[in-house]
Amino acid sequence: MEEKIILTRDLSSSAAEADFEEISLFFEEKIREKRYRELKELIATIPSADMAEIFENTDKAHQSTLFRLMSKEAAADAFTNLQPDTQRRLIESFTDIELSEILEELYIDDTVDLIEEMPAIVVKRILKSSTKEDRDVINTILRYPKHSAGSVMTTEYVRFLENMNVEEALTHIRRVAIDKETIYTCYVTDRDRHLLGVVTAKQLLTAELDTPLTDIMDEGIIYVNTHDDREEVAHKLNRYGFLAMPVADSEGRLVGIITLDDAVDVIKEESEEDFAKMAAITPTEAPYLKTSVIKIWLARLPWLLILMLSSTISSTILGGFEAALPAVLVLFVPMIMGTGGNSGGQSSVTVTRSISLSEIEFSDIGRVFWKELRVGLLSGGVLGVVTFIKVVLIDKLLLNNPSITVLVAGVVALSLTVTIIAAKLIGAILPILAKKIGLDPAVMASPLITTLVDALSLVIYFAVASATLPV
Amino acid sequence: MEEKIILTRDLSSSAAEADFEEISLFFEEKIREKRYRELKELIATIPSADMAEIFENTDKAHQSTLFRLMSKEAAADAFTNLQPDTQRRLIESFTDIELSEILEELYIDDTVDLIEEMPAIVVKRILKSSTKEDRDVINTILRYPKHSAGSVMTTEYVRFLENMNVEEALTHIRRVAIDKETIYTCYVTDRDRHLLGVVTAKQLLTAELDTPLTDIMDEGIIYVNTHDDREEVAHKLNRYGFLAMPVADSEGRLVGIITLDDAVDVIKEESEEDFAKMAAITPTEAPYLKTSVIKIWLARLPWLLILMLSSTISSTILGGFEAALPAVLVLFVPMIMGTGGNSGGQSSVTVTRSISLSEIEFSDIGRVFWKELRVGLLSGGVLGVVTFIKVVLIDKLLLNNPSITVLVAGVVALSLTVTIIAAKLIGAILPILAKKIGLDPAVMASPLITTLVDALSLVIYFAVASATLPV
Repeated sequence: MEEKIILTRDLSSSAAEADFEEISLFFEEKIREKRYRELKELIATIPSADMAEIFENTDKAHQSTLFRLMSKEAAADAFTNLQPDTQRRLIESFTDIELSEILEELYIDDTVDLIEEMPAIVVKRILKSSTKEDRDVINTILRYPKHSAGSVMTTEYVRFLENMNVEEALTHIRRVAIDKETIYTCYVTDRDRHLLGVVTAKQLLTAELDTPLTDIMDEGIIYVNTHDDREEVAHKLNRYGFLAMPVADSEGRLVGIITLDDAVDVIKEESEEDFAKMAAITPTEAPYLKTSVIKIWLARLPWLLILMLSSTISSTILGGFEAALPAVLVLFVPMIMGTGGNSGGQSSVTVTRSISLSEIEFSDIGRVFWKELRVGLLSGGVLGVVTFIKVVLIDKLLLNNPSITVLVAGVVALSLTVTIIAAKLIGAILPILAKKIGLDPAVMASPLITTLVDALSLVIYFAVASATLPV
Repeated sequence: MEEKIILTRDLSSSAAEADFEEISLFFEEKIREKRYRELKELIATIPSADMAEIFENTDKAHQSTLFRLMSKEAAADAFTNLQPDTQRRLIESFTDIELSEILEELYIDDTVDLIEEMPAIVVKRILKSSTKEDRDVINTILRYPKHSAGSVMTTEYVRFLENMNVEEALTHIRRVAIDKETIYTCYVTDRDRHLLGVVTAKQLLTAELDTPLTDIMDEGIIYVNTHDDREEVAHKLNRYGFLAMPVADSEGRLVGIITLDDAVDVIKEESEEDFAKMAAITPTEAPYLKTSVIKIWLARLPWLLILMLSSTISSTILGGFEAALPAVLVLFVPMIMGTGGNSGGQSSVTVTRSISLSEIEFSDIGRVFWKELRVGLLSGGVLGVVTFIKVVLIDKLLLNNPSITVLVAGVVALSLTVTIIAAKLIGAILPILAKKIGLDPAVMASPLITTLVDALSLVIYFAVASATLPV
């Protein structure tokens, strides 16, 4: 009965968390009943990515048993999909031999990812259990700056020498395929690993066997440098429609590749990071439901504190305002501050994303300014007029507030217009300046712009009101 | 001299917009000088994705000349990367024969994308210039709901019959490769197209030629349905590490595939849409610098208006507040409203993204509520205490405001704590409810939550103050 639930589980429907929890419970039961052979057969039918989910839901006490029931290849595959905490726990349960075996199955870039997440003592064990050759490669990759192409590349690519023909290339692939992250894009180099051309498996499969590689290879090589930004590289790979992007060192020698699926992870990770930063949250990698309350709290608290404390500036301005001007003006403070914040948010998010997607560079700052100025004038103009009408019709006539005069409506409308224009410009320009001086534009998008626009909108309101209204 | 600029242009460096503008100018000059042969040779060395950029920067009068200088394959490739406006203009300049030739080179899914962007009259011409067979496939794909897997799939995949062996499969690939979007993941089906297994080119390349496909194919097939959500499908493809995901109809018959590079486009498009919505902008697809001021303005204005008008609620509450309570309390309104907004924004963005990534479903609503309640209590608690100390030390003692008493500080702190807890819960729960009733959670994240939290924070402040302070 229960077995049936699992075996007929429709993998085509969206992978529901509940399913994995159910399967985990079922597996735990089998483990307690020591029905290992049966379990092993079942596990063999489940994709590694799903096994990783099942793992995360399995009781910690049973995880290593479950892991040992998987084939080495599948186990390694599932392992790379696990949360760092689970990976660490599993490694601690491994014997040295088991650890070596898993490491041997992992692609170098996955080992590097793993090492970056593990505490020092586990890293030491991982390096000790790797082969000398792998250790050297790992150390090289680890030395590349964070978020660089070098730090996410893998060195397991297929390389042909320039004097090979199609048949020799196919034989070479057959021999080395098992250890390579992709065999579909291969690189032709000279003996010093200088890139000469790119050959795809499609070209090899459709060409005559005796064709020299130099006849079919694509020589218009597009490559990136080890120090290029990984997000830029990922978008570039996608833009050119490649399955892999070659990474060369400063002398143009091929040192690694970045595959499309790793690029997808980079794109996803970077955009999730931007979402978090724009919402004033310190980015964390783990899924929400798997993150502890304390971790979520710590990721959010600092920004809330900074934003709250910086609002002292606004309060102080408002204090001076209240003492000097008619009380009725205070009614419109939330509207003006709010609309200013929204206007600034619109332009800052747009510009920040365009920077992330390499659509805007520092040299475009003038064009952006001019564009936002016009958008700001149009938006500010319309909202000013609407506000004027709204204040007169609704707040003055409908809600019958005697202290609202036509002049007050005019002050509110004008202040709003100026605030919107200023907010649009600040929101658009600050991220570009931030990027220029090496700060993260996405962080700019939230706290600093909000605080600035809030304070500025009050100053504008204050200035317009003092200039026009009798005190 | 000038030629040198282009030929030595380092394609490995980030593709700078300025470069493309320069090349476009250079090309326009060559066209005016009618040096077509030279230009043709130059163009042949430039990747199609770059040619698309150059196109966009080229004077409209010269675009069709430039296009005709490209090889058919490269032209079709570049064509799919163009902005809809440019595509339309080019099609209008094509003869019927030229249009047929380009359409023949396009993959079906690219033709469908094109049709979706073109005005009715152009669509009619495109369909007329397609083969009968293509037209039928296009019409089928167009009938799938927007944002469904069926609407983004392509029908150009490699299919083997179950009785073939490796050699026959390789021969088949050689024959059909040119027209297929990928040959790296192939599907084994029966005569009725029911999916039986998946075979990769890697498996074919490393197996003996006489091996039956049924021996090497992977039978644990993961597929999606034509009506599944395209974003879910894209993330699934990435999760399983596939290069392509098979799409089946309700009877389990293979009807198409979604390749990884198309999935990347879906992931990028959907997350850019979410960025826009969260910033209260109607999503547009074109890059910022290429979008007209009017279009940017129209995408932003409605939300600014809605948010502005809805702030009338807050103003009204504030009006009642001002009449009934000590004026000093108004000073802290921006801080309480702002912190409430930020707290709600943090939880709503987190939850909305988790929904997009299929990490949270409706059944998780209880867990989310409980998590956010605890995060809210912790955040609210700390910020309340900090606010109390800040108000007493800075606003009362340092800034020497005599109307701020310890009781006022207490009211402000308590109101803030309650506001934060309420905002976190609203921000987290509303997107889940929105998704449940078929609304877009990302739209919820911004306007509605902001308006609700703003009004609510004032009500809370009002209630706490009236209950504790002497009027």
